[in-house]
Amino acid sequence: MKQFIALLFVGVLATAQVKKEQLNLMPWPQKITVNEGNFLLAKNFKVNITGQQNDRLCAAATRFLRRLDGRVGLFFEQGFITKTNEEPLAQLQINCKSVGKIGLYEDESYYLKIQNNSIVINATTDLGAMHALESLLQLLQNNGTDFYFPNTEISDLPRFTWRGLMIDVARHFQPVDVIKRNLDAMAAVKLNVFHWHLVDDQGWRIQMKKHHKLTDVASDGLFYTQEEIKAIVKYAEERGIMIIPEIDVPGHATAILTAYPEIGSKVIPITANNIEKNVNASGFQTYTVERNSGIFTPTLDPTNPKTYQLLSEIFDEVCPLFPGAYFHIGGDENEGKDWDANPKIQEFKKKNNIKTNHDLQTYFTMKLVPMLKKHGKQLMGWEEIMTKDMSKDAIIHAWRGPNEGVPAGKSLLDAAQKGYKTVLSNGFYVDLMQSVDYHYLNEPIPGNVSLTEDERARILGGEATMWTELATPTTLDSRLWPRTAAIAERLWSPREVTDLESMHKRLVEVSFRLEELGVTHIRNKEVLLRNISNNQDTSALNDFSNVCEPLKIYSRNKGGTEYQTYSPFTLFADVCVPDATDAVAFSKAVADYQKTKSEADKTILKGYLEKWVALHDRLQTTSQQAPLVKPLLPLAANLSNASNELLVYLDNPAKSNLKSLENRIEKCNTKEYADVELAVYESFKKLVR
Amino acid sequence: MKQFIALLFVGVLATAQVKKEQLNLMPWPQKITVNEGNFLLAKNFKVNITGQQNDRLCAAATRFLRRLDGRVGLFFEQGFITKTNEEPLAQLQINCKSVGKIGLYEDESYYLKIQNNSIVINATTDLGAMHALESLLQLLQNNGTDFYFPNTEISDLPRFTWRGLMIDVARHFQPVDVIKRNLDAMAAVKLNVFHWHLVDDQGWRIQMKKHHKLTDVASDGLFYTQEEIKAIVKYAEERGIMIIPEIDVPGHATAILTAYPEIGSKVIPITANNIEKNVNASGFQTYTVERNSGIFTPTLDPTNPKTYQLLSEIFDEVCPLFPGAYFHIGGDENEGKDWDANPKIQEFKKKNNIKTNHDLQTYFTMKLVPMLKKHGKQLMGWEEIMTKDMSKDAIIHAWRGPNEGVPAGKSLLDAAQKGYKTVLSNGFYVDLMQSVDYHYLNEPIPGNVSLTEDERARILGGEATMWTELATPTTLDSRLWPRTAAIAERLWSPREVTDLESMHKRLVEVSFRLEELGVTHIRNKEVLLRNISNNQDTSALNDFSNVCEPLKIYSRNKGGTEYQTYSPFTLFADVCVPDATDAVAFSKAVADYQKTKSEADKTILKGYLEKWVALHDRLQTTSQQAPLVKPLLPLAANLSNASNELLVYLDNPAKSNLKSLENRIEKCNTKEYADVELAVYESFKKLVR
Repeated sequence: MKQFIALLFVGVLATAQVKKEQLNLMPWPQKITVNEGNFLLAKNFKVNITGQQNDRLCAAATRFLRRLDGRVGLFFEQGFITKTNEEPLAQLQINCKSVGKIGLYEDESYYLKIQNNSIVINATTDLGAMHALESLLQLLQNNGTDFYFPNTEISDLPRFTWRGLMIDVARHFQPVDVIKRNLDAMAAVKLNVFHWHLVDDQGWRIQMKKHHKLTDVASDGLFYTQEEIKAIVKYAEERGIMIIPEIDVPGHATAILTAYPEIGSKVIPITANNIEKNVNASGFQTYTVERNSGIFTPTLDPTNPKTYQLLSEIFDEVCPLFPGAYFHIGGDENEGKDWDANPKIQEFKKKNNIKTNHDLQTYFTMKLVPMLKKHGKQLMGWEEIMTKDMSKDAIIHAWRGPNEGVPAGKSLLDAAQKGYKTVLSNGFYVDLMQSVDYHYLNEPIPGNVSLTEDERARILGGEATMWTELATPTTLDSRLWPRTAAIAERLWSPREVTDLESMHKRLVEVSFRLEELGVTHIRNKEVLLRNISNNQDTSALNDFSNVCEPLKIYSRNKGGTEYQTYSPFTLFADVCVPDATDAVAFSKAVADYQKTKSEADKTILKGYLEKWVALHDRLQTTSQQAPLVKPLLPLAANLSNASNELLVYLDNPAKSNLKSLENRIEKCNTKEYADVELAVYESFKKLVR
Repeated sequence: MKQFIALLFVGVLATAQVKKEQLNLMPWPQKITVNEGNFLLAKNFKVNITGQQNDRLCAAATRFLRRLDGRVGLFFEQGFITKTNEEPLAQLQINCKSVGKIGLYEDESYYLKIQNNSIVINATTDLGAMHALESLLQLLQNNGTDFYFPNTEISDLPRFTWRGLMIDVARHFQPVDVIKRNLDAMAAVKLNVFHWHLVDDQGWRIQMKKHHKLTDVASDGLFYTQEEIKAIVKYAEERGIMIIPEIDVPGHATAILTAYPEIGSKVIPITANNIEKNVNASGFQTYTVERNSGIFTPTLDPTNPKTYQLLSEIFDEVCPLFPGAYFHIGGDENEGKDWDANPKIQEFKKKNNIKTNHDLQTYFTMKLVPMLKKHGKQLMGWEEIMTKDMSKDAIIHAWRGPNEGVPAGKSLLDAAQKGYKTVLSNGFYVDLMQSVDYHYLNEPIPGNVSLTEDERARILGGEATMWTELATPTTLDSRLWPRTAAIAERLWSPREVTDLESMHKRLVEVSFRLEELGVTHIRNKEVLLRNISNNQDTSALNDFSNVCEPLKIYSRNKGGTEYQTYSPFTLFADVCVPDATDAVAFSKAVADYQKTKSEADKTILKGYLEKWVALHDRLQTTSQQAPLVKPLLPLAANLSNASNELLVYLDNPAKSNLKSLENRIEKCNTKEYADVELAVYESFKKLVR
């Protein structure tokens, strides 16, 4: 009878045919067809799983059902899905052969077919089936009265096997719930590797039972217990995600050396002068947890057997927490200054015929290989570990690019050609506040390079990296999302999928839907604005934030000493994000107008400009009871003044004082105020060209 | 030199004198004087602690410093406060004699004095000092350029020693981070007891090592590990909060009986008919975790020795997790139906001369007393445990009131007069969506009752209770806050502090500031509205939400079967909160207008009415792409129609069709739509009276 009613309802659904281009899938699937008709959702919608009993898939299907019901409010009758073939007549049938293993090269493919009265998901592993459920959620449509899925057929699998996200929890600790919600977001866009940067100069974040001194003195009490780590690993696995832990050595070692200064490279002879400060009784330099950002000299001593003993014991405790087959040992940004200054280390190099510090680091890194192998782990490191003597078993994490004086993408290709498996992060540094377009078009294997099949196969994929010098639990998500979803598409979808307009359109929807997973990238904006405005109306601030972007690359926090780890990150620069919405829309409006010169397009431009003319006064009003708004006023004045003259210019270029106008526009090209920049400067210039 | 610069700055601060009435303290202190002058905040602001080394206070002062810096953005130089007398010249000096014990009757008093160049906090225990820091944060002012504290002198201590909040994590599980942020919020308003309702028909939420079956079959995988519980206890203690765990017995026992049906009271003889369903091989009724809300029959068997063995073993595992001296065993709403129907239990009563089911429950409860005493715990229970044979050592939790056919507050006085220590929750049920005024004026010791000093002393205080039939982690905070802050004031401040206008004004500020602790009561509103609107402009929905309130008391989810624990709580009723802002403002505007009959006041009224007239069409537009808006349209139409006729009436009563107008207004008095009601109905009626 229920079946009959459901059929009747389907008959009632009259809605325009959805076109492929209207779908908001991200990452875009390998193959998709949209057919006529729709699957209508009703209260009796049910899910059934067939195949091997699969607790992970049952739980995922239950979460799917709750998320869907949260969107459609139908009060589905089905509560929890706990076992295979519980609801043989269910409209959604998931046929899944086996439980996927969490790791690289597993079958993540799926087939999804939606018809008027049935939905079928076929997948070899539950990893594929879970991806299919995310695609299905992205397909949800409504006609104002009913919710439905358009009849669609998708065959899908990922382009790269390594689709990662790294989060740095050393510079700003990120609590368990922050990690969990971002794992959910990763799963929603089909990312499958979470690289957990757990240790750096600013903190040691892993509870250690034997070496508890590491958290006692080098964590400020902010670390994950081993039970929490296990719970996060389990949480990730339930979502098809492998975790790669990172302990960064031999550089970035201030936290380790705060606990164990005796394995540091800097040895200072005791004098009457220095005994009081920074040197402990045994004559070692002492260290304290770093509060600034940057590259620091504290480095492990690769000639000291105690260094290896400690690391070996640490790996013995940490490796078993992570079932994945890879372990990241960092290895980046060791400038070797303390090595050069240490006579004992120099002597060691000579004696062992080690020529350069790079060679010495290779000597060090190679000693770690068997320590990790013992636990079934393959060593991974940032690209600096790649020297001629480095084992080909190591995975090379390519990160350097033009900022570091290296051509973009070169290290990745180098590694692949030299016989290393490799992962790309250059171009995926989401913490640098660059446009989503830049990340999206960061193709790992550019068309102009020729690689052998083997070389190509060694390019495992890529990883978005989120360093947290400037990101707290409150702001982290808005630095990550939605841009990381576009990176996810780069790593999953066919390389030909590069249409920016389509990406932007879909990104808006994906971004919105991430909210249901608890991701705070949208909601926390108003929280910060309320703080800045002192709980006044935030609309002026919000309008201003939609035309400002945080300073990019390394131009905010120059030299790493403006901000300490304990600085306030509750200010206007922390509100703003790349791709400021009004600035992006204005840029498009300028292009449109310059094409058409139509009054309609001019009116759109003038709408923005008038809004910006008014902005300075509105912000000034807000600032009367909100000192944190004050630093924005000069920048808002620059925007208002330029907008004002642009309005004159638009209506009558002849009446405009071009010199003064250009002057006004140039004043919008400043990084002097509140660590943000006006994202309309280039568009303003274009407009008067 | 720094001192000198600071002094210079103070000279620059020219700002109007703040009056006592302008301060946003909540709870209001026992004694406060505002003096001339201010303490200006600058980058070099520092904190120093003197007295016994006190790690808890150091951590609290560090958190204070970070919260303050987040508001003022001054980039304070001081990072972490780790030991006594680290900064002897600091402007804020905290003098604290000893580490307070977490429990009742501890000294929580403090003295705070702010002068031009110094702030002093004196407290016997760090509990008092931490309260002082919260008061100091609430005193923050600004003049548009600078932030400052007005020169103030406060002597403060709580009226009641028990100032609690209960959160039910059985009906909807609330993850660790939700509990933590609410503990922070509690501390911000000086609440000191967190009553953790951990077990009910809908789930068992404590990891058990011996009896893991409890979470295996009766938690849906949603429970706290023992390590998480310990971490939460520690987190609470760091904020001066004692935790009282509750395991509700002998009723509300479906979850326990799902794991251990053999100690249930319902015994069914096996027949050919029932062996297939709901009865296991041993002839016990089997149970499944409850998905609905209400009062259910599953009850422990008080005549079965196994019941006590299990409970004793459970207490042996649970008690050590909680260092507090009290343990809540529930004891409420046992109707004894399964006891009546069980011949063995009837026989037992007869044999032991136990007359009533209440007496039988007392027999049961008294058996628990020594089990808890063994762990140094005093038994606490809901008021139903209070029978003539109940030990006077038990603490009586008074909860019943007019909804349950008992005069408000009567059980509390009864208990005190009978010699029991007692805590009031009747009138503090924040889940029932009543106005803050109602809770605020819920005086535990009304003026018209006369109590002896001893009786009065037995009234320990009160507790806000948050049952979660209808609250998820996403909505919980908006059900709790800000109203719980007003309850905190009732329990802390002098009984004479009852001015509603002042409370409302202060509550707005307190509510805003709770955001910095991660509380989501404000931010999650837009999240839900975006979901309902399908990511369209939410302003019409938001306007409507400011005039709607969720159905109150038990009129939403009648009979407890409309909503299951897995129902969607992402709908309009979940957005709305008591004291709908526009409705409250309109009510005041009506009163003003009726007093003055002025054009100005009429214009204010008309402003609201015009907004509401337009609302239906605006919502209809939104609904075109958002089916979840559809169910609101009839209610919005009622509001628009009534507002329309009221506009006519206001301008020219004679032109108005009174009959039709009253009809329209009556249509606003409905609970038929979307589980909300229009909060302007009474004001509309007043307007035409």
